Amino acid sequence: MQYLSQRNSRSLFGPHVRNFFAHELLGVVSKILSSFQTSVTHLSKVSLKSHAHRTICLAINSSGHQLMYHTGSLEFQRAEMATKISHNMKKKEKGQSITERCRGFLTTPVTDISVLEEKKDEMGTKMEMLIMETQAEFYKALEEVDGGTFKVDKWERKEGGGGISCVMQDGNVFEKAGVDVTVLLGCLTEEAAKQMRSGEKVLKGKNGKLPFCAMGVSSVIHPKNPHIPSVHFNYRYFEIKEEDGSKQWWFGGGTDLTPVYIDREDAFLFHNTLKEACDKHHPKYYADFKKWCDRYFYIRHRGETRGIGGIFFDDLDSPNQEEVFNFIKSCTRTVVPCYLPIVKKHLNDSFTQEEKDWQQVRRGRYVEFNLMYDRGIKFGLSMPGCRVLMSLPLTARWEFMHEPGKGSREAEMLDVLRNPKEWV
Amino acid sequence: MQYLSQRNSRSLFGPHVRNFFAHELLGVVSKILSSFQTSVTHLSKVSLKSHAHRTICLAINSSGHQLMYHTGSLEFQRAEMATKISHNMKKKEKGQSITERCRGFLTTPVTDISVLEEKKDEMGTKMEMLIMETQAEFYKALEEVDGGTFKVDKWERKEGGGGISCVMQDGNVFEKAGVDVTVLLGCLTEEAAKQMRSGEKVLKGKNGKLPFCAMGVSSVIHPKNPHIPSVHFNYRYFEIKEEDGSKQWWFGGGTDLTPVYIDREDAFLFHNTLKEACDKHHPKYYADFKKWCDRYFYIRHRGETRGIGGIFFDDLDSPNQEEVFNFIKSCTRTVVPCYLPIVKKHLNDSFTQEEKDWQQVRRGRYVEFNLMYDRGIKFGLSMPGCRVLMSLPLTARWEFMHEPGKGSREAEMLDVLRNPKEWV
Repeated sequence: MQYLSQRNSRSLFGPHVRNFFAHELLGVVSKILSSFQTSVTHLSKVSLKSHAHRTICLAINSSGHQLMYHTGSLEFQRAEMATKISHNMKKKEKGQSITERCRGFLTTPVTDISVLEEKKDEMGTKMEMLIMETQAEFYKALEEVDGGTFKVDKWERKEGGGGISCVMQDGNVFEKAGVDVTVLLGCLTEEAAKQMRSGEKVLKGKNGKLPFCAMGVSSVIHPKNPHIPSVHFNYRYFEIKEEDGSKQWWFGGGTDLTPVYIDREDAFLFHNTLKEACDKHHPKYYADFKKWCDRYFYIRHRGETRGIGGIFFDDLDSPNQEEVFNFIKSCTRTVVPCYLPIVKKHLNDSFTQEEKDWQQVRRGRYVEFNLMYDRGIKFGLSMPGCRVLMSLPLTARWEFMHEPGKGSREAEMLDVLRNPKEWV
Repeated sequence: MQYLSQRNSRSLFGPHVRNFFAHELLGVVSKILSSFQTSVTHLSKVSLKSHAHRTICLAINSSGHQLMYHTGSLEFQRAEMATKISHNMKKKEKGQSITERCRGFLTTPVTDISVLEEKKDEMGTKMEMLIMETQAEFYKALEEVDGGTFKVDKWERKEGGGGISCVMQDGNVFEKAGVDVTVLLGCLTEEAAKQMRSGEKVLKGKNGKLPFCAMGVSSVIHPKNPHIPSVHFNYRYFEIKEEDGSKQWWFGGGTDLTPVYIDREDAFLFHNTLKEACDKHHPKYYADFKKWCDRYFYIRHRGETRGIGGIFFDDLDSPNQEEVFNFIKSCTRTVVPCYLPIVKKHLNDSFTQEEKDWQQVRRGRYVEFNLMYDRGIKFGLSMPGCRVLMSLPLTARWEFMHEPGKGSREAEMLDVLRNPKEWV
C-alpha cells in the first residue's frame, strides 16, 4: 500500500471555484491534477461531485491510486486509495505461489501452507489468503499513521483452527485497535447451524452434527482523538457439510463508521468508497446493504444506531461462489481507503475535555450494542476457545440521564443516530 | 440513623489478646466496652467470633446500635448499625399514620397518600412504605459519609406508576450512586408474566392479559476509591391478578458486594450482617440464598462471579405473605449496616494508579454482567417508560487479555471470583 506524500497537498483554487459548474471544472481539474502529480502522466475516471457545499473530485492515476480532492477548506487535500492496486495485486496473485504470497503476511496462516498449496483452488484457501492479506494491509496502514507497534499473537484452538490477533493498546493515535484473523473448524449441532444464518435454510447433518469451517477478518479501531471516528469491519466465510456430502456456503460482512461528531465530508468519503465497491458488482448492493447496516447496528433500548453505518450483509450465496468472493475482495480492499484518509485529516485536531467526555459516553453505547445485540459476539461466546470481546473500547462512560443541549454538536450527532441519513 | 463518632475508636488490647480463647475474652470485652461507651450503660448480645486470624466482637448497646469491634490492626475499631433501631421503628410505625411516616421520605410516594391511607392494610401499601423508608435511610447514610448531595427526580410512567430516582454522580466518595424506588402498574401478557418468575408456575389471564403491580427499591453504589467495594441491593414485590380474580404474589431481593480487592474482614461483616437477618426467619435462608447469589451473579463467559456475593432470592411466597414481608423488612434494614461500616473503614485509604486501573477493569466486568445477564435489566428494558441502566458505573475499562501477575492482590481477587468462598 503506497501513499502519496503529504507534500502533494496543494492550494489549487480560490473561492471562485465553488461557483463553477461541475462539468466546467472537469477539464480544468484534470489538467491541474496531471500537472502537479509529477510521478503521474495520466488521470483516468476523473469525476466531480458536489456534496455538502463542497466540490469533490475523484480520479484514478496511472499507478492505480484513487485520488480524492475536495474544496473543503478551499485547499485541495488528497485522500487516496488503491482501487487499481487490486488489479496489480490480482496480476501478482496469479503469478505468485501461496508461499510467496504468505511472505507479506503478519505470520504464517492458521492453516498449514502445505495444505493451502494442495487445496489452492478451493474457496476456503482463497478466502484464508484474502483475510490474511487484508489484515496485513490494514495493520500496516494503521502502524504507519500511529507510529506505534501492534502486538501479534498467533493462537490455536484445541477444538480446531485458531487465529492471529494483532492488537495495539494506548498507541499515539489509537486507544485500542485490533485486526484479527480467525479460522474455526469443528462440528455444529443443527440448531447452532441454524442460528448462524439470519435466513431460514434448514441444514441436515449426519447424526445431527454438521462439520463446519468459519473464517473471517475483523477489526475494531478506537482512536483517542474524539474527532477521529471508530471503525469496524468484518468479512467472513462459512462452509457447512451436510449429511449427503454437499457443501452449504455463504459470505457475510460489512464496514461501518462510528463518529463522535458529524463530519459530512468524512461520511461522504466513507460511504462513497463503499458504494463504488458495491456498484462494481450489483447496482442494488449499496442501497440494500446500507439499509441492512442501519437496521443491524441499532441499539433498540436507546432508539439510536451505533454510528453512521456503512454496509452490512449476511447469507450472501448468489449468483455464484466466484462472483460473491470477488465482491468480498472488493470490499476488503476498501478498508484502508474508507478510513485512513479520515484518520489523517483529523490527526492534529484539538479537542476539549467536554468533547472527550462525549466520546466516552458514545463508547458506552458502543459497549451496549456489542454486549447486548452483536451476533458475532454471541457466536464467538458460543464457541469454546474463541477470543471475543476484543472489540470493546479501552474506556467508556455512563452518565446519569445524559442529554446534550439543544443546537449543540452532540445533539446534531444524536439526531443523525436517531434518524439515519443518506450520505452519498 | 445515628453513628457513634470516630473518637470511640480505641486501642484496647495488646497482641496478647489474640491468644485468649473466645469464652475467656467475653467477660473482659464486655466490661471494657461498657466502660468506654460513655453514653451506654448496658451492652447486650455480646458475642465473639474468630475469623481470618482476627477476633471479632459483636454487641448491641442500649440505644439499639450494633457495634462491631475487631482486633484487625490490634486496635478496636467500631462498625455500628441499627438492628435495634428497627424495633424502635416498628413501635413508631404502629403509632404513626401513613401521612406522618411519609414526612421522613425523600418525596411523596408514587401512589397517592390518600390511596395508601385507604388501602393501608394491603401488602402493596406496606411494601411501598417499606421501600420508601429504605430509600430514605440509605440515601441519608450515603450523603452523610460523602458530604455531597443526591439529585432527586420523581417521574411518572404513562403506562402506569412511576418512580423516585435519587442519584449522585462524581461525589467526594462515590463516583456514581443511585437509590431508586419504582412502582409499576400495567398489564402483562401470559408469556411476559411467565418470564418474570424464575419458577414454572403458569398464570392465566383474562384474554391473555394479566393486570400486575411490581415495586421495589434498588441501589447500586460505585465508590471512587478502589479499596471501597461497590454494593448493590434490590428488594421487590410482584402481584398479578389472574382471570378468576385471585392474586398471585411473590417477593424477591438480595444484597451483594463487589470489592476490587479482598478484605476478609469486610467480607465477614457483610455476610454476617446478612446471615443474622436471615437467621431470624429461617435457619436455611442464609446458606440457600448465599448459594443462589453466587449462581446468579455469575459472568459465564469469564467463568467469574461479579463480586463476593451476599444473598439473592426470587419467587418467595411461603410460609405466608406477612412472614415473607417481615423477612424482606429485616433484609432492607441491613443495607446500611452491611455497607456503611466498610465505606467508613476505607474512606482514607490511599491507592495507586495500578489499583485504580484494576478497579476500572472490574467495573468493565460489572458492565458485562449487567448488560448480558441481569434479569432485572432485561425486565426493565421490556417495560416501556422505565428507567434502566442506572446501575452502570460512570467509567469502565477493557484491557486486551488482562491477567494479573501470580501472587498479586489482583490474582487473589480473581481466585475468589473463580472459586466462591464461605465468609461466615
